[in-house]
This record gives sequence, structure tokens and C-alpha cells, in this order.
Amino acid sequence: MRILLVGAGGTLGSVVRKALVERGHEVIGVGRSGGDVLCDVTDPEAVGRLYGQVEGLDAVAVAAGAAVFKPLGELTADDFAATFRGKALSQVELVRQGARHVAATGSFTLISGVLTEEPIVAGAAASAANGAVEAFVRAAAIELPPQRINAVSPTVVEESLPSYGPFFRGMEAVPASRVATAYVRSIEGAQTGRIYGVR
Amino acid sequence: MRILLVGAGGTLGSVVRKALVERGHEVIGVGRSGGDVLCDVTDPEAVGRLYGQVEGLDAVAVAAGAAVFKPLGELTADDFAATFRGKALSQVELVRQGARHVAATGSFTLISGVLTEEPIVAGAAASAANGAVEAFVRAAAIELPPQRINAVSPTVVEESLPSYGPFFRGMEAVPASRVATAYVRSIEGAQTGRIYGVR
Repeated sequence: MRILLVGAGGTLGSVVRKALVERGHEVIGVGRSGGDVLCDVTDPEAVGRLYGQVEGLDAVAVAAGAAVFKPLGELTADDFAATFRGKALSQVELVRQGARHVAATGSFTLISGVLTEEPIVAGAAASAANGAVEAFVRAAAIELPPQRINAVSPTVVEESLPSYGPFFRGMEAVPASRVATAYVRSIEGAQTGRIYGVR
Repeated sequence: MRILLVGAGGTLGSVVRKALVERGHEVIGVGRSGGDVLCDVTDPEAVGRLYGQVEGLDAVAVAAGAAVFKPLGELTADDFAATFRGKALSQVELVRQGARHVAATGSFTLISGVLTEEPIVAGAAASAANGAVEAFVRAAAIELPPQRINAVSPTVVEESLPSYGPFFRGMEAVPASRVATAYVRSIEGAQTGRIYGVR
């Protein structure tokens, strides 16, 4: 399959990319500052230009999202708005516009995270954005067929512990390779509207 | 208790207001175009002015939220952004700023809805906003104590069937009075981080 992978250069994205390439897929990596195609997916017009540049897509997958982590009392209105744009609206836009560009039997695989259900201190904005993504996936799944849509919801990945470990105290980390397997399941499988938790 | 009720003049809000007043509470109704205090809660600065006008609050409850209902293929990027502002960011802001104004043992009661889990055609933006609200409630609940926060998640109410009935085909409606009971449970109870479904 020909797969557009947003965040392909990131900690998780690079492992997802490797897993997909090893399974014979063609991966077009998208990043804000690097990759096969440059795009700031938080800008709806940039998403439009992105889809204008790539053709013949069988799947779109997202392996990155920007969220602000601060204690609730320090999070500003702008922090919440930026986190919605960075993790929720950006992914919605990739689906909204992508539905016209991806194959009729193609799929979308978004990313949420464990914080939807299991909150941590300083994660309220990220939790809210994740909750939006998961509910959107369930909703879009009844309007997109035959296209499919799922989300992968990982807990913190081992490779991110140096930077995110202090936020996820006492929560088991998983190797990014296990999360990548969930992307394969979503892209190569036949289910839709599912949230694949990797815990 | 002295309760700030946002959307007190609406179809659901007026029934919630009546239920709270009958139980001996003082209700300060907030609306965009009517009520005891006028406020467009989608504007963070207006929320700041709102809290500057009312003192001694024991609880804040929200019984209204603006969402755009359109088939997924017709929803625009602006529709999603407006729905996040109208139903998710507005409620987040009432909590974020309200935490400094509500009593130490006070509570916040937000509104989500059945679409978080049970989508309908034309409801993708509303589902996403509801999912954000519910995940935010779970997250804020671990940072706000001793203040509490819950959400009421109603299905369509009987009183709204004339306008919303066609969207909720085959889904059982509930009287607004049952939904109002969930607000009483949240405000007078002791739980936090709960989503009270009314189905």
C-alpha cells in the first residue's frame, strides 16, 4: 500500500515507518521540519496543499501530535487551544480533507493515548484532545465507509521515557515496536471505529 | 448552595434551574442573550468578567453548548473549530478560571452527551467536542481536589425532539427532568471525575 505517515521522523513515527516498510508498504513521510513532504498539519490550508502533492494514497496514518503539558492551574486558554489544534483539529483535518484523496477502500489511523482514560497531573489538555480524537474516530466511522478509520492509543513508549518519564510515574511503558504493530493492524485489517489501546 | 448555571434559559437549562431552585439552591443564570448575567462563554475574556461579577459560588454547572450538526463531508474546518469552542473550550475555560473563584469544596458540572460513545450521522463535530469534555473531566478531577468536577451526558431530551429528533432516529429520548436529577447528583454528591450518563 501507499501510506502517508504524518510524524514519520518522530520517536514513534520512525518505528512505525520501519514496520510498514518491512511489510512491503511504500511510506511517504510527512513532518513539519523534515521528511519526504513538509507540512504543518495544524494549518488546514497546508493540509490541502499536502493532499495536492501526493496521489494514489491507500492509507493515512498519524504518529505524532503536539500537546502542552502543565499543571491545570498553569495551563492557559491558549495552551488548551494550541493542544486542540496540535493533536485534535489537525487529525480531524487530515481525515476531513483526506476522505476525498484516499482510495475508496482506504483507511485513516489516528493517534490518541492512554490519557483519555487514565489521566496524569499536567496532562489535562492532552487528555481533552485525546478524548476528542477517540470520539471523532467512532463518529467518522459511521460516515466514511467504505473508507475505514481507527485510532491507536498508546501509553508512554519506552523510547520517550527520557523526556516524558516524569509525567508517567508508575505507569508501564511499552516499546514503540508494539505500538507500530497496532498501526499495522489498523491499516491492513478490516475493522473501523476501533480504538486500539497499547498498554 | 449558590450555583452559577450557564445556559439556564435553554430547553434543558430551564428544567435544571427549576430542579435546583426547588431544592433550595440559589441559582444565578447565565446566558448569551438573557439571564441574570449575560456572558458569551466562548470568549475567555468574557468568562473572566463573568467571574468578576459573581462572588461566593459553591458550584458552577453548564447546561448548554453550541455544536454544528452536518454530514461529515459538509463539515468545514471552521465548523469543527466553532464546535470545539462552543462546547469544549468554553467549558474548559469555565473550570480553568472558575477554580480560583469557586469555594474550596465547590464543584463543576459540565455537559457532554451520548454522542461521545454512540455516534449519529451529522454528529462528528459534536462527538469530538463531547469526547474532549469527558476526558477533560477525568483529568481535571485529579488536579482540582478538594473541588470536584463531573459531567452529565444526556441522550436527546424529549423537549428537544421537535428540533433534534431527526438526528436521533431510533434513539430513546429522556425527559429533561431526569437529566436535571443528574445535575443534582453531581452538585449535591461527593463524587468527582464521573460521567453521569442519562439514557
